[in-house]
Amino acid sequence: MNMRIIGSGSYIPEIKISNKYFENHCFLDENGNSLNYSRERIIEKFSAITGIEERRYAPDHYVTSDLAFLAAQRAIDDAGIDGESIDYIIVSHNFGDVRYNTIQSDILPSLASRVKNKLNIKNPACIALDIIFGCPGWIQGIIHANAYMQAAIAKRCLVIGAECLSRVVDPHDRDSMIYADGAGATIVELSNTDKGLLSHHSASFTHEQAGYLYFGSSFDPAQNQDIRYIKMHGRKIYEFALKQVPEAMKSCIEKAGIEIDQIKKILIHQANEKMDEAIVNRFYKLYGKIPPKDVMPMIIKFLGNSSVATIPTLYDLISKGELPLHEIKNGDIILFASVGAGMNINTFVYKV
Amino acid sequence: MNMRIIGSGSYIPEIKISNKYFENHCFLDENGNSLNYSRERIIEKFSAITGIEERRYAPDHYVTSDLAFLAAQRAIDDAGIDGESIDYIIVSHNFGDVRYNTIQSDILPSLASRVKNKLNIKNPACIALDIIFGCPGWIQGIIHANAYMQAAIAKRCLVIGAECLSRVVDPHDRDSMIYADGAGATIVELSNTDKGLLSHHSASFTHEQAGYLYFGSSFDPAQNQDIRYIKMHGRKIYEFALKQVPEAMKSCIEKAGIEIDQIKKILIHQANEKMDEAIVNRFYKLYGKIPPKDVMPMIIKFLGNSSVATIPTLYDLISKGELPLHEIKNGDIILFASVGAGMNINTFVYKV
Repeated sequence: MNMRIIGSGSYIPEIKISNKYFENHCFLDENGNSLNYSRERIIEKFSAITGIEERRYAPDHYVTSDLAFLAAQRAIDDAGIDGESIDYIIVSHNFGDVRYNTIQSDILPSLASRVKNKLNIKNPACIALDIIFGCPGWIQGIIHANAYMQAAIAKRCLVIGAECLSRVVDPHDRDSMIYADGAGATIVELSNTDKGLLSHHSASFTHEQAGYLYFGSSFDPAQNQDIRYIKMHGRKIYEFALKQVPEAMKSCIEKAGIEIDQIKKILIHQANEKMDEAIVNRFYKLYGKIPPKDVMPMIIKFLGNSSVATIPTLYDLISKGELPLHEIKNGDIILFASVGAGMNINTFVYKV
Repeated sequence: MNMRIIGSGSYIPEIKISNKYFENHCFLDENGNSLNYSRERIIEKFSAITGIEERRYAPDHYVTSDLAFLAAQRAIDDAGIDGESIDYIIVSHNFGDVRYNTIQSDILPSLASRVKNKLNIKNPACIALDIIFGCPGWIQGIIHANAYMQAAIAKRCLVIGAECLSRVVDPHDRDSMIYADGAGATIVELSNTDKGLLSHHSASFTHEQAGYLYFGSSFDPAQNQDIRYIKMHGRKIYEFALKQVPEAMKSCIEKAGIEIDQIKKILIHQANEKMDEAIVNRFYKLYGKIPPKDVMPMIIKFLGNSSVATIPTLYDLISKGELPLHEIKNGDIILFASVGAGMNINTFVYKV
């Protein structure tokens, strides 16, 4: 009995923020000093490395659970199921609901409770809970949904990744240009076939790596230093990911008994295009190969890094045929992989 | 193969806050009006209903993950295991790390990542994640640890409940007297006996109940209404719990094939002594019985409501013989039960 995805949905906010939006930002380094480049040059360099030209921000009146609800409703509609038949609603996020122009996270009740409420699902046996696992939270939700099914406490789950990073960015930090808002959702269920989830792998590196992504003060010392924002040590994350993610991918496909050449697509978390290319290159290099053309669909150019929302959104766009040059067909093998705060890494092999 | 608790630990903060502490608080109703009683009378009534005379607050320099770490280290020591052998660290909480005199929640990285870091556990295969499930979060962590074991992705887990409610209370709200800080932890592992976790039951009621516990503004309209605090509709929670919790308990013992007379102890979440007594009375009434003397150990009198920390702390105190009149012996049947934000309810039957 394998777990299969029977429907997906995503919510991509309407508000487009181009790189031009940041041209009048005063970017500083972590010591509060001005950067030795013009703003245009900073943005140009940023775009060349990350591949980001545009990202989406949620409308002011929305919070993360609203985005999660919109993606969830679409996934339920796509699967053609009755919401009341869902056994678990798992929402992964990392900042809770942060209202526009405020700084407090609100997770009382959980975002999953709010989503279930908005979906108008009444069945008390549908358990609603949140997990916090960094950007890999949605993949971890998939892994947990599978565990609940193998343990016979669920047959059908709604797994959502939703985030509004625009509410927690320091405008004086160049890295703020990376972050975006969004939500992706999938309906998974137990199925009596050889398709579906074939293997998974997770890891938490929490020694010095626990501080690579953190909640820190503004780079502008004139700002209230008690107010904190999403911050990262980008270089350290790059080196860490490049070393650990290919190994995790290798371990996962070996568990599934899959050859690297069988992989049709790699759906990887998108925080930096150059980093993703380097990871995938190194993964293939472990087998003395080079990555096939179009194996790694990218959406970072126009959606930025929407944390836990990126991978389910990417899956949804491809499965709906909305990503030119990319399609997934019955029988295809897909490798999902993520890395993020924790630092956590996870991957799963999925047969369509 | 059943999951058994092989060690426990708790951290009870040293700072004692007696009811007298609140005598100079200006309590208001939800419309900002003064209450029609003297403060002494308010506190007297509060104490008569909730049973709370004292609660503990964490020292200013601690955040929730520090409390979680201290309880976890004691649980590891009590179990006599090597921390590196743990497959999953699950931390349940509802507000993240909120530093003293600040209002932001910090869950980047997860509290579980921080706890693993402080425990100095290096094994990347030890997965660290947080769950958000209201006060029933620790029980839900136990249920999930069991699912991971049944699904063969874990053999040994560390399940922690930790909270610092003192950081999110509105001093103008009488209910602020209920809330406390603390942490409790257990080590659970798969075991080849007929003892351990025999059955479990969970439910999420998210229709109108989603708003029973919420993050709301101060009752004092002169305060910044953008700053929010833990708030509850106590009467609605009381009625809800009294109706739903006994039914959940009944469902759980029936799943376990246990007779009500076999229950030696009921370890129930403690938010209100009168409510707990009413719940247990009604549970026994479902079987035409009255509760045996001393079936329900209470710690609310001196520890208040420490949310997810209450039940694992209660279990730890009893199992260490630190609660006069209460002991648990080999072969005893214990019923665990909780109710809280979501609104969520869960219970499990455990054979010592």
